[in-house]
Order: sequence, then structure tokens, then C-alpha cells
Amino acid sequence: MSPAEATARPLNVALAMGPGVGRRVFPPQRLATVTEPLRLLSPDPITDFSTPEARRLLEETEVLLTGWGCRMIDGAVLAAAPRLRYVLHAAGSLKHHVGAECWERGIQVSTAADANAIPVAEYTLAMILLANKRVLQIGRELHRARAAVDPEKLFPDLGNYGKRVGIIGASKIGRHVIRLLEPYELEVVLADPFVTPDQAAALGVELMGLEELVASSDVVSLHAPSLPATRNMIDAGLIARLRPGATFINTSRGELVDQDALLRRLEEGDVFAVLDVTTPWVLPADAGFYTNPNVLLTPHVAGSLGTELERLAASAIDEAYRAARGEALRYEVKAEELAFTA
Amino acid sequence: MSPAEATARPLNVALAMGPGVGRRVFPPQRLATVTEPLRLLSPDPITDFSTPEARRLLEETEVLLTGWGCRMIDGAVLAAAPRLRYVLHAAGSLKHHVGAECWERGIQVSTAADANAIPVAEYTLAMILLANKRVLQIGRELHRARAAVDPEKLFPDLGNYGKRVGIIGASKIGRHVIRLLEPYELEVVLADPFVTPDQAAALGVELMGLEELVASSDVVSLHAPSLPATRNMIDAGLIARLRPGATFINTSRGELVDQDALLRRLEEGDVFAVLDVTTPWVLPADAGFYTNPNVLLTPHVAGSLGTELERLAASAIDEAYRAARGEALRYEVKAEELAFTA
Repeated sequence: MSPAEATARPLNVALAMGPGVGRRVFPPQRLATVTEPLRLLSPDPITDFSTPEARRLLEETEVLLTGWGCRMIDGAVLAAAPRLRYVLHAAGSLKHHVGAECWERGIQVSTAADANAIPVAEYTLAMILLANKRVLQIGRELHRARAAVDPEKLFPDLGNYGKRVGIIGASKIGRHVIRLLEPYELEVVLADPFVTPDQAAALGVELMGLEELVASSDVVSLHAPSLPATRNMIDAGLIARLRPGATFINTSRGELVDQDALLRRLEEGDVFAVLDVTTPWVLPADAGFYTNPNVLLTPHVAGSLGTELERLAASAIDEAYRAARGEALRYEVKAEELAFTA
Repeated sequence: MSPAEATARPLNVALAMGPGVGRRVFPPQRLATVTEPLRLLSPDPITDFSTPEARRLLEETEVLLTGWGCRMIDGAVLAAAPRLRYVLHAAGSLKHHVGAECWERGIQVSTAADANAIPVAEYTLAMILLANKRVLQIGRELHRARAAVDPEKLFPDLGNYGKRVGIIGASKIGRHVIRLLEPYELEVVLADPFVTPDQAAALGVELMGLEELVASSDVVSLHAPSLPATRNMIDAGLIARLRPGATFINTSRGELVDQDALLRRLEEGDVFAVLDVTTPWVLPADAGFYTNPNVLLTPHVAGSLGTELERLAASAIDEAYRAARGEALRYEVKAEELAFTA
């Protein structure tokens, strides 16, 4: 028995999330990792805090592992959960189920937002590498021509060497993209009004204004939060400044972009786009983005999906073990931080 | 002046490669980096060692920077180059232009094979990430359907978490793929008959037999050299053992694979392939690979192209500076190693 195990306290654990979320995020093989000193009260997530069964579980619960669709943990829920000390979320956003009352009661709250950022950054990294090399455009040309294709004749400047990648927003996702870009010989620049040059240097990137970044980058990737202030931030003026040959990647939110202006620029044929998000998120069937040869649309797949949901569960379960060992939570969110998180 | 500069010896540098290669690999901005203590005798590469101009250059040359299509540096060339001490190649393969006489004369030889491995590994990394997430298949379905697409309904097991990536061959490229995979939560396994379990452990991967690797990996990526012994190594028996849902990536050589067997398996619809190389390298127009929805063909683009050619030049020029500073070459190739290099 290790010293940490020797001092670990047993903690009663319950699950709470929307219907159908449990089997995706906490499948049996993942729940099987919830063992001593944790005690899983029930493998079935609470979907409604007001049922007798939910009340019975809440009475004993010390750690609540939450997932997408968890109902608001309000005063009534807290009154039914006298032993509750931790709300550990197996997803990113807390605002729909964690209110001020939780912090006022002294409950510790954490999020899997870091884990949730990983697949989005991975999707972005792959798209950056393919964009600089024009792999997908060249591949399509080969499938069309069914004959010899000369990549450098199609795109003389292709290559993942000496190119500039512009990251908009040092969010969790933006920062993880920057980390993932480290092994590559690409110049990474960042635009973020809340980052200082010193902070940018610590990230290993050069800080610059949004306009300069957009005008000088070979790939521009958007990782800003969706807020009233960021709506339409990638406006017609910025879109006009994209370099010929540039690729614009959006894994953030469609409403941050003037889509009409982007489509007009794409129709000029000299820029490319990879759009995992649009507004509306399912575009009408006659939207020009579907048919423009310089656009790759994907249906909001960059975020956690499939096996990646288990990473969210693993992150929340790790937090529960930290709690049991008396350690600080790794991804604790304080009441005052909630306003700044997505 | 740094100590290294203080002790650096001037060295006369000339270029030798095939017609048209110079402007691609050593464009003016790259040649401008060849400065003191290096002395570039001429910006124009030697394409034929027998011309009077070539003879005049060779008379003075101490360092020969070579590129694709360089003619064989035989006894006659060496007799015309009495001061030649370094042949530094700005590409991978030496066997077409460096013969035994060079080493017998005591000339030091180096290669940019490491730099040449980088883009192939980067292409592979991007394709692995997209394959596990089924991004390209899902994107195509969205472009086809022009309506809501449920990724997890199409591919319930998608995701870059908890998947196994099988690397065949710990070549320079295979090793670089393994390094690039480090930041991801994927299990990497290796099959290579010349690697010991200890060496595999040092690479951070598990060593296994080829058959077990093929049968258990979600992505199988081929990085073996093209040799008589490796011809058809991915045979019908191995192809039959690919897991349903597996993706086979080939950036090596087409002749390593039983293409007929691969196409038959692809036509069953339960596996995927990303093929940057085929035999013949331009397939006939009626080849089934062009139309199979589970295949992405690219026309030999994974290797150094476009701006990536400058990385090869930069690597060779770096070697020249090491020579001038009296340092050991970083990528020296000894005579006895030539037989083992591609």
C-alpha cells in the first residue's frame, strides 16, 4: 500500500447527466475504474434530481460526477445532498448545471475542459499539416484526372516548411494547438487582446494584431470564445485581407465569422477553408459551401466524440481520486472564474 | 566573434545536381545563407562534371553540395578535384552519385535523409489523426447529404483515444512518426525484425510480430525499405487480417503491397486506405482505387516538395558550416553503411 493509498478517505460517488449520456461517456469498462477508495453508489446516472431514487442517492453522495445535460444543481438539490463536497464535470461548460449556491456551500467544482480541448486541437493540427501541403486538393485532382498529377505545378508554394500559422485566441484549444505545433518547422503567431508579449513569448509564439496575423499567415485558425464581443469578429474586411493561398480553419463557432463574405472570397478561388462549424450548424442544402472545391466541411466533429468521450470521464474520475487522496483538484474552477469560461 | 568563428577555416563550396534541381532546392534566398567562412564558388550547379567550367570549379572545390540527379563522382571527377574533402548531399539517397572511390580518398560524406524523412512522417501523422476520427469520410458524407450528419451513428468507434497505431519498420521515417505520435493518447506498436524489445522500449513503443500488429491495430502505417526481401511483404494473408474499420497507410513503396488483395479487401467495404504510393506509381485510369470510397490516393506528395526542398538544402549547408568549424558532421555516412541505406 502506497502512502497516498494509506491516507486516502473513502468517498461515495454518484453520476448525474442527461438521458443517454451515461452509456456514451461512462460505459461499463470506464465505470469499472471507479474503485477503492471511491465507492460508486450506482452505475445508473441521475437524470432527474427529484425522483425518490435520486433523493436516496443524493443523501449519501459526496462526489457527483456530472456530464452533458446534467440538470441545474440548485438549492433544492443541495438541500437533498447534505454530504456533497465535489462536483466534477466530465465535459467543458459548467454554466448550465453549476450555480453560485454550489460554491457558497463550499463545494469544490472542476471541469474536463482541458480534456475536451484536446481533440479539437488534434483536428486542427492535422488540418494545418494537410493545408500547407495541399494534400486534399492534390488528392482530389488525382482521383479526378486518373493520370499523372504534378503537385508543384498545381501549387508551387506547397510544403510544411517556412510557413506561418496564425492562431486567433489563446484559449485552452488555441494553447493546445500551439503546443502540438512545436515539433514542426512552422512559424506560429498569435492574436489575442488579453495576452501580453511576455506571455506569448512563454508560449513560444509571436504576438501580433489580428489584422496583421490574418494578412500574413498561410493558415489562420480560429480559437476565440463565442461571446457578444466576438460575434462577426472575422468580418468582411479581415476576410479580404487573407493571403492568396491561405487556408482559414474554423473549429470555434460559425457566428464568429461573416459567412457571406467568406463564401464570396472562396468563390474567387484563391483561398481555402476548413469549417467544422457553421451558422446554422446544418447549412441549407443550397449553401455554396457544399459545392465550392476549396471548402472542406465537417459536421462539428472536431470536439470529443466516440472514444474521446471516455477521456472526459477519465479526467473527472482522476479528479475524484485526487479528492479521495486529499490532494488539490487539478482543474478546479472557482466561482469568480465561471464568467470567463465558455 | 564567437570562439567557433575564430577557429573556422574558409572552405570553397560548389554545387552539383541535375538540370533544373538547383532553382528548386537552392533558390537565391537559400544560397544567400552560404557566407563566411564558406565561399560559394558559383551559384550555378555543375550538371556535367566534364565541361571546362566544371573542371575550373572542381579544381578549387573543397565542399561539394549535391542534389538529385548529381552525376557519379568517380575517379575521373576526383582526379579533377584535388582539394575535395566533403560531399554533402541535399537529399536522401547516395548510391547514384557517391561511389567507393570517394571514401577511399578520405572524403567525408553526409546525407539529408533525416530531413527528407520529416515531411513523410508529418503526412502520416495527419492521416493517422484523421483516420481514427473518420474525418474525411464524415466530411464527404456531409457534402453529399447536405443535411444533418451524425458522426457517431456512421462510425460508433471513432476517436483519437485508446486506439492502437501499428508502425511497420523503424526506418528514419518510422521513428519520426513514433516521435510525432508522442503527444497523443494512442498506443503505438512496432513491427521490425531488426529491432530488439529493449530498443523498442527506448522508442516508447511495444514490439510485436507483423501478423499480430496488422490484426490488432486501428491504423497500420508502412515504413519499411524497398528491398527484394520486402517485396509483397503486405501479402493477401496479412491484408485479410486487417481489423474491420482499420486504415492502411502506405507512404513507402507500392511494390511492398499485394495491391490486388488490398483492392479486394477494400471492395468489401470494411477497411480504409491512404495510398501515397502505388505500383505503377500512376495507376491505369480504370484502377479500382480511384473510385473506391474508402481510398484516398495522393500522387507521391508525402516526401519533400515545394518549400520542403529548402529544408534539404539547409541541412546540407549546416553540414558545410560544421566542416568549416572543424566539427564532426551530424549525418555522416561511412562506406560500410551505404549498403543499408535506401
